[in-house]
Amino acid sequence: MKLPRGFTASGIRCGIRKKRPDLGMIVAEDGANAAAVFTTNRFQAAPVTLSKAALKRSGGRVKAVVVNAGCANAVTGKEGDLAAKRVRSRAAELLRCPESEIFLASTGVIGMVLPDKKILDSLSDAVNRRSATGIEALSHAILTTDVGPKVAQASFVHEGKRGRILGVAKGAGMIHPNMATMLSFVMTDLDASSAFLKSALREAIDESFNAITVDGDTSTNDTVLLLASGKLGTSKVDRTGIGAEDFTRALNLVCRNLAWMIVRDGEGAMRVMEIEVKNARSERDAKLAAHAVATSPLVKTALHGGDPNWGRIIAAVGRSGARFSPRKVCLQAGKLPLVINGEPAKYLEKAAAKIFGQERVPITIDLGAGKASAVILACDFGHDYISLNTDYRS
Amino acid sequence: MKLPRGFTASGIRCGIRKKRPDLGMIVAEDGANAAAVFTTNRFQAAPVTLSKAALKRSGGRVKAVVVNAGCANAVTGKEGDLAAKRVRSRAAELLRCPESEIFLASTGVIGMVLPDKKILDSLSDAVNRRSATGIEALSHAILTTDVGPKVAQASFVHEGKRGRILGVAKGAGMIHPNMATMLSFVMTDLDASSAFLKSALREAIDESFNAITVDGDTSTNDTVLLLASGKLGTSKVDRTGIGAEDFTRALNLVCRNLAWMIVRDGEGAMRVMEIEVKNARSERDAKLAAHAVATSPLVKTALHGGDPNWGRIIAAVGRSGARFSPRKVCLQAGKLPLVINGEPAKYLEKAAAKIFGQERVPITIDLGAGKASAVILACDFGHDYISLNTDYRS
Repeated sequence: MKLPRGFTASGIRCGIRKKRPDLGMIVAEDGANAAAVFTTNRFQAAPVTLSKAALKRSGGRVKAVVVNAGCANAVTGKEGDLAAKRVRSRAAELLRCPESEIFLASTGVIGMVLPDKKILDSLSDAVNRRSATGIEALSHAILTTDVGPKVAQASFVHEGKRGRILGVAKGAGMIHPNMATMLSFVMTDLDASSAFLKSALREAIDESFNAITVDGDTSTNDTVLLLASGKLGTSKVDRTGIGAEDFTRALNLVCRNLAWMIVRDGEGAMRVMEIEVKNARSERDAKLAAHAVATSPLVKTALHGGDPNWGRIIAAVGRSGARFSPRKVCLQAGKLPLVINGEPAKYLEKAAAKIFGQERVPITIDLGAGKASAVILACDFGHDYISLNTDYRS
Repeated sequence: MKLPRGFTASGIRCGIRKKRPDLGMIVAEDGANAAAVFTTNRFQAAPVTLSKAALKRSGGRVKAVVVNAGCANAVTGKEGDLAAKRVRSRAAELLRCPESEIFLASTGVIGMVLPDKKILDSLSDAVNRRSATGIEALSHAILTTDVGPKVAQASFVHEGKRGRILGVAKGAGMIHPNMATMLSFVMTDLDASSAFLKSALREAIDESFNAITVDGDTSTNDTVLLLASGKLGTSKVDRTGIGAEDFTRALNLVCRNLAWMIVRDGEGAMRVMEIEVKNARSERDAKLAAHAVATSPLVKTALHGGDPNWGRIIAAVGRSGARFSPRKVCLQAGKLPLVINGEPAKYLEKAAAKIFGQERVPITIDLGAGKASAVILACDFGHDYISLNTDYRS
């Protein structure tokens, strides 16, 4: 698999994790315009605060991404900050670019200072091994407890030319102890300003990464970065984004596909529930209701068992804080009505069990209170989730 | 065990549950003043809406409580409403009191109409078997998946006389499929107005039933009822409650003990984390932070494993929405500092593991942002929780 024009990547082992690749690099050979979205957690890891400030200083330009797995370098104070800065400084030196164009990302145990010596010793190797086909190595080097790598791509047509978007991700809340981080790097060869990239990314995230939940926990390190090399050779898309509709469609698709992979790969997950709340009084109400259902342990364990236990869904909606009249609420699984106007529908248990036994379980909750809607994807909770998360950090 | 003066109770089998007692009655022989707190879930079961309205109509007087397990009679529309009314009407007839003095409560499967015929056939039996020692039978008849019955009592001195408080409860979110209901009935022989009982109950609940979480789900049926028979023979405590401090202390104790039993009896629970958030900017901030930690599946699975995994606690506090500066946050387990001013403390892993291996794990989170505080008790998530909740409703 090749990266979009203008990008190279590599993934190697530097020794933070045992016998697993744990250091990745993405290089925009002639630089890229960039936009990023970071975790809203008040505890922000050193790489998050540094990358945020760097992006500002560089005016949204990025030359390279240095990413490691095995250590989040979060809640590590000054020491963690200094360790991350040493990595950044060395990377800038090797690639001959300003430090502000080096973007850092980390995932792994919280409270452990980045073992920067291991990274510094391997950084030139990571630089030398980079190639236009390095995406596969990179996609492995950023994983923690993910079952497998996550890569999605799509093409688009802009000014008559076919451009590409390729994204790579690691799981959110895949949750090896302390490793509840979601990282995603999306690259394109479109020429676009970082202001445009920012608005396109925000929109794409709303319907993808922000619409999934594994366990409701937001990490100290969550980061999504969008890079545009401009190598497609079309004119620059500016803030308005007019004429770039095919690009935004493709970007949404890539982000949605990555989000699906992340939630489907929830620890021990067998099923994904697609929760659509419609006819809510406001978008906030719709999101409250969808989120309550998506994070309810009762709903998630029933989902694991393939149990069409709609009472749990209704109870979660009822406590969500969303405003509605219970007598107007309808619930259906796929096209099968389970609740009509607040009362149980007549349906065959077998038909409901069949839908809840699927890999993808579509649920529609009609609040009958307005016109707003929201969709969230949620995975189930099973024994593997407990096993992976109760064992001592390893 | 005897009930406080003025009360009798019974618990029998009426056939809703298989081979288990499932029908209970509490009778205030000469009536009682009452106050109740109900679920805030927007979907309220028929017994909840009926009891709420009845209490209003009777001016806070209750003659008897009829409670069943096995069926919540929630989201059951008109049919469920009529079934509950038939039970109430029969109970009023048998006890020769107005219908408005019959208090109904149900726990069990959502979406199933109350099998009122079974209850009607057994109601006179429940009335006849009532006795001053019937609390044990009652305490069993209200259980669903609780491991055991939950009864707590305390005495108090009022105007030189020794009065009693006795409370009985069934678990919140003990969560056999659809059975996430918390019911509690607290009886006292104090003579008090329902206005006073209301304020005393609200205060007691805030630090007990409202400060526990098994899985964050609030049911359609949650109810706490406080009954005062007035048989102690002291003068009536009115709205101000002045002079009843010893009673309120005892009431708080009974409610806190019941709450502890409920959370300790969470399905498969091995440990309870006592989460204290202090020095928050406001009570709301303190509660947000404590609640985020208490409901985090990552924290709860680590707790199950006895893993001193403080990164998960910090990450949950960070995403809680509480306002604070990360650099001022301190975290300790028991008296062992784990995080000081946002940086990891130096401590022995063994010492931390010892605390997290206890039955009760005390955690203090100091936000360094103000003077408000909150305490929440949370149980762990283990394999039994998954097993009990993924199996098909039975």
